[in-house]
Amino acid sequence: MSSKAAVYRGDKTFTIETVETPPPGPGQVQIDVAYCGICGTDLHIYLGHMDARVGFERTIGHEMSGRIAALGEGVEGLAPGQPIVVRPLDHCGDCPACRAGHEHICHNLTFIGIDNDGAFQQRWNVPAHTIHVLPDGLDLSHAALIEPLAVACHDVSRAAVQPGEDVLVIGGGPIGMLVAMVAREAVAKVTVTEINENRLAFAKGLGFETLNPKDGDVAEAVHAATGGKGADVIFEVSGSQQGVDLMTAAAATRGRICMVAIHATKPTVDMFQFFWRELDLLGARVYRPEDYDTAMGLLAKGVVDCEAFITDIQGIDQIQSAFETLTQNPNAMKSMIRMTEDA
Amino acid sequence: MSSKAAVYRGDKTFTIETVETPPPGPGQVQIDVAYCGICGTDLHIYLGHMDARVGFERTIGHEMSGRIAALGEGVEGLAPGQPIVVRPLDHCGDCPACRAGHEHICHNLTFIGIDNDGAFQQRWNVPAHTIHVLPDGLDLSHAALIEPLAVACHDVSRAAVQPGEDVLVIGGGPIGMLVAMVAREAVAKVTVTEINENRLAFAKGLGFETLNPKDGDVAEAVHAATGGKGADVIFEVSGSQQGVDLMTAAAATRGRICMVAIHATKPTVDMFQFFWRELDLLGARVYRPEDYDTAMGLLAKGVVDCEAFITDIQGIDQIQSAFETLTQNPNAMKSMIRMTEDA
Repeated sequence: MSSKAAVYRGDKTFTIETVETPPPGPGQVQIDVAYCGICGTDLHIYLGHMDARVGFERTIGHEMSGRIAALGEGVEGLAPGQPIVVRPLDHCGDCPACRAGHEHICHNLTFIGIDNDGAFQQRWNVPAHTIHVLPDGLDLSHAALIEPLAVACHDVSRAAVQPGEDVLVIGGGPIGMLVAMVAREAVAKVTVTEINENRLAFAKGLGFETLNPKDGDVAEAVHAATGGKGADVIFEVSGSQQGVDLMTAAAATRGRICMVAIHATKPTVDMFQFFWRELDLLGARVYRPEDYDTAMGLLAKGVVDCEAFITDIQGIDQIQSAFETLTQNPNAMKSMIRMTEDA
Repeated sequence: MSSKAAVYRGDKTFTIETVETPPPGPGQVQIDVAYCGICGTDLHIYLGHMDARVGFERTIGHEMSGRIAALGEGVEGLAPGQPIVVRPLDHCGDCPACRAGHEHICHNLTFIGIDNDGAFQQRWNVPAHTIHVLPDGLDLSHAALIEPLAVACHDVSRAAVQPGEDVLVIGGGPIGMLVAMVAREAVAKVTVTEINENRLAFAKGLGFETLNPKDGDVAEAVHAATGGKGADVIFEVSGSQQGVDLMTAAAATRGRICMVAIHATKPTVDMFQFFWRELDLLGARVYRPEDYDTAMGLLAKGVVDCEAFITDIQGIDQIQSAFETLTQNPNAMKSMIRMTEDA
């Protein structure tokens, strides 16, 4: 059956092509994709940073929602028409990480939508084990936020945020803001620090305390606001040397620092503070199945103001301009692609 | 009552002086010090690195054993003649760390023997809450190893070493070797890496697997020896950039890295690996009361080969030459000072 797919061809270029999607194979499910958000990783791919991994024949996209179109042989417990999201991770089952129960960070992990074809296509075949069935009544454009929300749920879970704790989120982009929302739902007192005034205003509009490093020393402000204690939990989402400097400076004794950001270059780290204040640094990557369940529950509960969070929605034929616009808008939260006319 | 004290006078110099020790004040206990080991921190003081903190009128020393000589007003549950060790930490009880139950890393911590007078004196008054009564029959020269052994117990406790885990200790000095012994007692498989061949031979003589970075890539060797998994727990005790590079390279997915070393300068850290493999970095400093209890139990059980571990014992009058000798012997484990003729 023919349908449209956006194919990354290198050089900041997507082509919209008509493809023949085969029926779902054994153990696969075919999805009618409804919406697919643009992830920061998708932007990196668009900008050519990941060409060696992705190639020039790849349909990317993984922040999606849709409905089941057809079931492959041997797939049970699912039915055509069900609204779903896909957890885009396929693990090997045989590496040391999988054997230890850490399948989500499998040593041979296939990230669906990066390492093979993703959701910027109208019909998509995926392994059945990646499917999460949505609760009834969830808007599918909102449901496409579940993937990044699951990242935030995983981060907050790794950091084991407790009620009443002082939380500092370093970096107020889409993931930082979702982390802030999930941490607040865990009854923490959340402050967001960010250098972009528009993003700070967005955070403030959602009711968060905000601090701009341009206005004064953030670590000092955090210690002053917490009676000299510091932040119990810090999420480093900035990926910057300044963020790494701040994470140790603002932490409470025995504070937990969750490393969410991807640091492509090695920062210098105040290792003495880890010793002196017995800090804990926890790396966090993608999500486990239960993080998807949590994210679906939080989204259904209204924890994310989806209308505010979704900056724009464009059709699949406009995907090229959607990426171009997004790279030029440092204030954007989530740009979303509507994959069919009837979504 | 007059007794001898070794006083640090700056410029790599101790003077042996006759001092009048006042009777123990309310809540204090007076100790007849039997033995006191030379800690790496004492060496730093001797070398002048900590003059601003220590001054030039300080009796240092904190790795001690002794017997109770007298009790101050209001001290209960102790008796003169009891063999004891002192946990040389005095906390404020009122800072955010103390209020959160982390008294051992109090924001205003007094380290007895650095911030006030320590155990390189024959009679020593200390707060009663710092006293741990020794089990009967423990050699007091061995008991003076309890303080550094408690450091190792705290490190292994922070890292929550489990039976069967693969442990890598980076740095085979005194603390690294004690960490290795305590981790092995926790039924872990322990490898020590170190560049000093004599220290490696010492580790090998105690039955540990050893790796010298000069002989090949240590991280590769660890992964090869663990079926591609890596070390479940890593203790960074080297304080070097090479050690920090190795700690992330050798770690298993979800591995725990315990930061034992004091990094006076900020190393560069492969922060990407923390994200990618969800590593955990845990700072560990000094000890809690229960670490002393564990250390006393392990010492009594014979977990430390004390005769091998104690490199030499000299009298208090030889403290100057003991420090001089130790700074010139990179192979030494523990140099100990016998504080009285009858110890």
